[in-house]
Amino acid sequence: MHSPPLSPQLLNCLTPEENTGCQHGLYFQDGERRVDYILTYHIKKPSSSRSNRQSSRFTDNAFTRSLRRGTARLGRAPTPQPRGDPEVASQDHSMDYHVDDKRLHREEFEGNLRDMGMELEKDEDTKTPGVGFVKIHAPWHVLCREAEFMKLKMPTKKVYEMKQSTGVGAKINTLVNKVTEPLYPNVEDNRTHNVKHLSYMFSREKQHFYSVFYKYQPIGLVRKYFGEKIGLYFAWLGLYTQMLIPASLVGVIVFLYGCATVDDNIPSMEICHPKNNITMCPLCDRACSYWKLKEACGTARASHLFDNPATVFFSIFMALWAAMFMEHWKRRQMRLNYEWDLTGFEEEEVSDHPRAEYELRVMQKSLKKEHKTQKVLTEKEKLTCKDRLPAYMTNVVMMLLMIGVTFAIVFGVILYRISTKTALHMSNNPTTRSNVRLTVKTTAAIINLVVILILDEVYGAVARWLTVLEVPKTDKSFEERLIFKTFILKFVNAFTPIIYIAFFRGRLVGRPGSYLYVFESYRMEECAHGGCLMELCIQLSITMLGKQLIQNNLFEIGIPKLKKLIRYIKSKRRSFQEEEREKKLQRYETDHFLEPFAGLTPEYMEMIIQFGFVTLFVASFPLAPLFALLNNIIEIRLDAKKFVAELRRPVAARAKDIGIWYNLLRAVAKVAVIINAFVISFTSDFIPRLVYQYMYSPDGSMHGFVNHTLSYFNVSNFQDGKEPMDPQHQVEMCRYKDYREPPWSNTPYVISKEFWAVLAARLAFVIVFQNVVMLMSDIVDWLIPDIPKDISLQIHKEKILMVELFMKEEQGKIQFIDSMMPCGGKEKRNNHAPIARSRSIPHTHSHTHANNF
Amino acid sequence: MHSPPLSPQLLNCLTPEENTGCQHGLYFQDGERRVDYILTYHIKKPSSSRSNRQSSRFTDNAFTRSLRRGTARLGRAPTPQPRGDPEVASQDHSMDYHVDDKRLHREEFEGNLRDMGMELEKDEDTKTPGVGFVKIHAPWHVLCREAEFMKLKMPTKKVYEMKQSTGVGAKINTLVNKVTEPLYPNVEDNRTHNVKHLSYMFSREKQHFYSVFYKYQPIGLVRKYFGEKIGLYFAWLGLYTQMLIPASLVGVIVFLYGCATVDDNIPSMEICHPKNNITMCPLCDRACSYWKLKEACGTARASHLFDNPATVFFSIFMALWAAMFMEHWKRRQMRLNYEWDLTGFEEEEVSDHPRAEYELRVMQKSLKKEHKTQKVLTEKEKLTCKDRLPAYMTNVVMMLLMIGVTFAIVFGVILYRISTKTALHMSNNPTTRSNVRLTVKTTAAIINLVVILILDEVYGAVARWLTVLEVPKTDKSFEERLIFKTFILKFVNAFTPIIYIAFFRGRLVGRPGSYLYVFESYRMEECAHGGCLMELCIQLSITMLGKQLIQNNLFEIGIPKLKKLIRYIKSKRRSFQEEEREKKLQRYETDHFLEPFAGLTPEYMEMIIQFGFVTLFVASFPLAPLFALLNNIIEIRLDAKKFVAELRRPVAARAKDIGIWYNLLRAVAKVAVIINAFVISFTSDFIPRLVYQYMYSPDGSMHGFVNHTLSYFNVSNFQDGKEPMDPQHQVEMCRYKDYREPPWSNTPYVISKEFWAVLAARLAFVIVFQNVVMLMSDIVDWLIPDIPKDISLQIHKEKILMVELFMKEEQGKIQFIDSMMPCGGKEKRNNHAPIARSRSIPHTHSHTHANNF
Repeated sequence: MHSPPLSPQLLNCLTPEENTGCQHGLYFQDGERRVDYILTYHIKKPSSSRSNRQSSRFTDNAFTRSLRRGTARLGRAPTPQPRGDPEVASQDHSMDYHVDDKRLHREEFEGNLRDMGMELEKDEDTKTPGVGFVKIHAPWHVLCREAEFMKLKMPTKKVYEMKQSTGVGAKINTLVNKVTEPLYPNVEDNRTHNVKHLSYMFSREKQHFYSVFYKYQPIGLVRKYFGEKIGLYFAWLGLYTQMLIPASLVGVIVFLYGCATVDDNIPSMEICHPKNNITMCPLCDRACSYWKLKEACGTARASHLFDNPATVFFSIFMALWAAMFMEHWKRRQMRLNYEWDLTGFEEEEVSDHPRAEYELRVMQKSLKKEHKTQKVLTEKEKLTCKDRLPAYMTNVVMMLLMIGVTFAIVFGVILYRISTKTALHMSNNPTTRSNVRLTVKTTAAIINLVVILILDEVYGAVARWLTVLEVPKTDKSFEERLIFKTFILKFVNAFTPIIYIAFFRGRLVGRPGSYLYVFESYRMEECAHGGCLMELCIQLSITMLGKQLIQNNLFEIGIPKLKKLIRYIKSKRRSFQEEEREKKLQRYETDHFLEPFAGLTPEYMEMIIQFGFVTLFVASFPLAPLFALLNNIIEIRLDAKKFVAELRRPVAARAKDIGIWYNLLRAVAKVAVIINAFVISFTSDFIPRLVYQYMYSPDGSMHGFVNHTLSYFNVSNFQDGKEPMDPQHQVEMCRYKDYREPPWSNTPYVISKEFWAVLAARLAFVIVFQNVVMLMSDIVDWLIPDIPKDISLQIHKEKILMVELFMKEEQGKIQFIDSMMPCGGKEKRNNHAPIARSRSIPHTHSHTHANNF
Repeated sequence: MHSPPLSPQLLNCLTPEENTGCQHGLYFQDGERRVDYILTYHIKKPSSSRSNRQSSRFTDNAFTRSLRRGTARLGRAPTPQPRGDPEVASQDHSMDYHVDDKRLHREEFEGNLRDMGMELEKDEDTKTPGVGFVKIHAPWHVLCREAEFMKLKMPTKKVYEMKQSTGVGAKINTLVNKVTEPLYPNVEDNRTHNVKHLSYMFSREKQHFYSVFYKYQPIGLVRKYFGEKIGLYFAWLGLYTQMLIPASLVGVIVFLYGCATVDDNIPSMEICHPKNNITMCPLCDRACSYWKLKEACGTARASHLFDNPATVFFSIFMALWAAMFMEHWKRRQMRLNYEWDLTGFEEEEVSDHPRAEYELRVMQKSLKKEHKTQKVLTEKEKLTCKDRLPAYMTNVVMMLLMIGVTFAIVFGVILYRISTKTALHMSNNPTTRSNVRLTVKTTAAIINLVVILILDEVYGAVARWLTVLEVPKTDKSFEERLIFKTFILKFVNAFTPIIYIAFFRGRLVGRPGSYLYVFESYRMEECAHGGCLMELCIQLSITMLGKQLIQNNLFEIGIPKLKKLIRYIKSKRRSFQEEEREKKLQRYETDHFLEPFAGLTPEYMEMIIQFGFVTLFVASFPLAPLFALLNNIIEIRLDAKKFVAELRRPVAARAKDIGIWYNLLRAVAKVAVIINAFVISFTSDFIPRLVYQYMYSPDGSMHGFVNHTLSYFNVSNFQDGKEPMDPQHQVEMCRYKDYREPPWSNTPYVISKEFWAVLAARLAFVIVFQNVVMLMSDIVDWLIPDIPKDISLQIHKEKILMVELFMKEEQGKIQFIDSMMPCGGKEKRNNHAPIARSRSIPHTHSHTHANNF
């Protein structure tokens, strides 16, 4: 309840005189009132679809809140004209109003802003033709009022020392601080005070963000400049990147373990052994010939890199890592909430205001109804389920269609793979034939990548279109629906080919003599000997690396630059002769040419899909965290640069948490447990090896495992026309990888007992893995408190100090009252005692006393 | 900020004159100040272990909070004597202080209370010897101060109408209200005002609670009288009971479906068919003979009642029911929070105050250290892990020991079953022999029940003892640790025999010719034909019903009555001649003989174990919800009666939620999904039937299923001395229930392919069931919003009204200022603008203005 102890010279230290670049600079023409926000609109081109975009210039969201309330009032005010679009001034980009109508609306909007206490000034001598600027200044008392409504926390005079930890903990802390000292950004604390001021922000802020990549992020500054919402994004990204460091370390160790043990791996030794003379059945009909198992030596050895017991450990580790990450984020968020004084803040109701499109639809509906019933409706209409049904139907159909398209494309790629493989097998060039597998795999993965990149853009647009069709009521609901749809489409798009390779490929093959055919001529593809894990790994690495390099970094930086260029060129062409004036443009005029801020959705979406790559199939690709880490180190700085220099400054928004994204992260982490369980038990050879070792091996070793997994086929059982044409080989029996009865049993080629035993073991492993990991995650969740101990102590301490402060204040007041009114005791009691009847007691005691006077 | 519009006559309507029963009644001797709280202490018997128990007489926890602060101060105050036990006045029941020391402490405690603003009066003419009473009155200004610290919400002058829903919804509502009208308790709203007053509360409150069992609970009144914490318990119990109604309905329908289809069930028809002539292998060595499968007809038919496809549906239903219950409770809690004005309230820090035992231990430790190092320690000591290690070790060892005892007892009961069965089989009485199974099962279940009941009491005491050993720092931590330990022990105790029957019984049998023996002579028991589900069902129903009837209702009501009687008799014997005076005892003197309130833990614990019975094994016992419902309808009223009439009135405590119990409920619901999946797939015959129908049945029907599940055994393969002695039967082959190769195969008696196939199907079912149910629960969780729509609308509306109110107030103030000080504008700006530098803005604008004067 005391004003903070601030030095008054700060007000004067940045007078308009310092803004040497332009006449009035960032002040009104009186040179006193600061420009807090700029509205821009097109004046010459009434049919333009982009009028009145707000370019934001002020961090304090008390102001923007008031602005919004100004807009809201417009909708509520009983205006003589028909019920109009209440957010027309800021959002009418899709509607076609008459010019006058537009000006009327604009004037009403500006009038409402003035009613709310804002001070407006039009920029008369703008040098950018076709664009009008309205400068807004929010006076102090308006800011105070809004701050009160928002329950902004204020520092009181009382300061207290934070307790310094002592003993070993402190020493470790000092050591850690010393070691990490070079990682802290070169931002002096006192310099941050000036950063708030507009004229300096570009150079200064950039300077911080251009600090070198290995330094910590200046989260406090990010929050000051961009608001809590974007601050939280960078904090989240920072924590995620930080958490990726141990994950990638362990991943690399697991990979190195694979490399080190590749020569001790008995199954691949057996395959590569020169005496190995197992004849395998041909991989395609007619064109392919029988082949020797030792040809698969390379693949088998490579498979071991990713398919070894350490992988199982690593996927358990990563599941726990994900749980740990969630917990750490909760704690970090709590800490930031405390540091940013958000502990008491509840989510704003701003976004509960209906969207313009929704109001328009409601208006159309009620007009129609009035026309029908010939009487004026008193009650406000709503959009019912019936009204929305067509949109919902379109949504469902389109979503299914899009998912169908993804599936069709994946299927197309499979066909490409099968047919190319057969064609290449037929070629006479021996080097071509020997490289068949690798060539086909790699090209197919690249095709998949390109398709994913293209469809990603398409799906983004489709999701937006579908959400617009739905006409959600509020901005918040719009955002959530859009995110949900985009998430589903992009996830399906990114992971369908990978899921096919992990779980379906090589499983729908049939058996020699009765293969499964697609379109009656294409035989389904098999995996190389050693499981599909190797191919899964190739597909994963190409998709992940490609997506990150091309989409995230090239697109994200390239496209805004390109758009800015186009925008600039366009406006230049329009006013060719005014070229020299451009250099003297006001700050807000140059900023007008920047791309507007499109929200954090694409940034989060990109990261959550990366999180999917890091957790979902980590059992098959332990290097994923490393690649993610490398990408993110660059990503943080690129994002920061983009936000600072490439985009208009976003309107600062308060937020306590990262909202729906946390739930999506949780969902991905949950699904990851199940998928990893299935990858280990079904895609890798881990379980068959274990089963062989403990159930079938004569000496308890892995010797004979390869032989055990191969079934016999009598070549005389080939269907006519499917047997290999190669005349060189005279073979009676060939082998294939499956658990089936041999030709000489009573029930030849029927699934054998071993198959069922292995299947049961695989399923049992899935159950055990899933439940153990879920239990461990829950334990991690339970062991790590959501609120860091020091923060909860601090909060508790502050509370006690607060109580003591109030106690003192109250005692002083009572003495004051007693001295003023010695007979007041009796009166007071009579006045107040009855209130005890209801349990509720006045909130602020002091006010009640004040009423006594 | 306005005092509520209350009528002043309320203060006088209950003057001491109305308390005709006693001289001063519930007022101080001046007849003006009300008695708000009573402290009692023993005076004559210094070694008594029960001095200074608080008997609470006041609902307002602002008061009790202040009382606690008084206690806390005592600990903090730099007293000359050695650092003493700060809560000695209220909690020193285990320590042996000297009488004088005690009186000193008491006087200091009372002094601190006076410092806090309390007014004390000693009851000089008490008629109960050996007990002293201190009456406390909390003056209005103290209550106000505490209310402010607690941020109690106060009703403002402003009232607004709740929006009435219109249209169909309203009509349905009216209809529902009419239908449920007889269910509302006969409590007039205005009568509740008087209930607060002490002299009337007993008769009045009782009257409400004795309202008939089918009426809704008067939750509002419960909360007014007992505080939010107990109010939440009754609200939770009410919701749980309410939710049990649909569950028990569906359960009964499922059971009836089983009854209706019992004659269409092909497997039991085949077993019961008179032509059925399958010879089964004997059930015990030597004494038992071969038997015909049709003898199991009755069991097979009975099994169908609980083992049919509807059961699968029911367990999915119950999993969703549990999720729904959780969600509904969250909503109900939110609604109660809103109605009870707790929305802004954060959990109190009161319980962060260290417990007396903890302080004592710390003091002992620092004294020891001082003694050793010969210097005075400045810093406060803490109990480190090393200090606690012995206690932790004892905890772990004792917990394991207790669990071991449970296991041992379950194993003992198994041995009892096996030996009794064999003994009875040897008996010559044919009726005894025919009833063997039922007799043994039932007696064993009753033994189990008795053991569970006894161990439950033992475990409760052990858990408390272990927690005391641990010396937790705060009351909250003490309570949580105690609950956790008690929960684990009681759960293990209640469910171990059931889990044994569900998952282990009949699985560790071995096979004819190579049975598994315990102690080399007892053959492990098998289940009756038709699975163990029937036996599980018997065990469950006996345990559940017995626990509920005996423990919950008999013990809970009987024991407090008994204790009260003993207490009464004791005090009577002590002062035999004062008998006639007893009738004129003060209210608080009679209440002194009531049992003190022991917390809600036993109540919640009982309910959560019942919740376990309702969800964990619901697949095998669909009538469980019905029994639970019947129990709870009585339970609610018995609990209410106990709280009102049998116990001292508990200190009212505020609470926003039910705390750790919600987490335990969630955990039980999660475990229930997995256990039900295993019960359906492993205990019931559901999966083997499906596998037979779709993989092995020649005509796709169930005909031949019984034969398929029975393996062959050649009686010549019996071990010597194990073959049945019965000379009547000349058998070559007998059958037994297992999937094994027949004697004539190459690998006789080896587990067959069918076994592995069925096992794989069972495991696959577990995975599918678990994940589908978890997904559905998550969807339920996601679809039902945590905050009811009407409540969130209401909160939003209140916020807007608040904003408008403040806006008006502020405008009035500004006008006032402007009229007072026309030149203030300029000055104001200079004074305040610099504050904008830091983002934080004064919380209450009005205060800042006030500083200007």
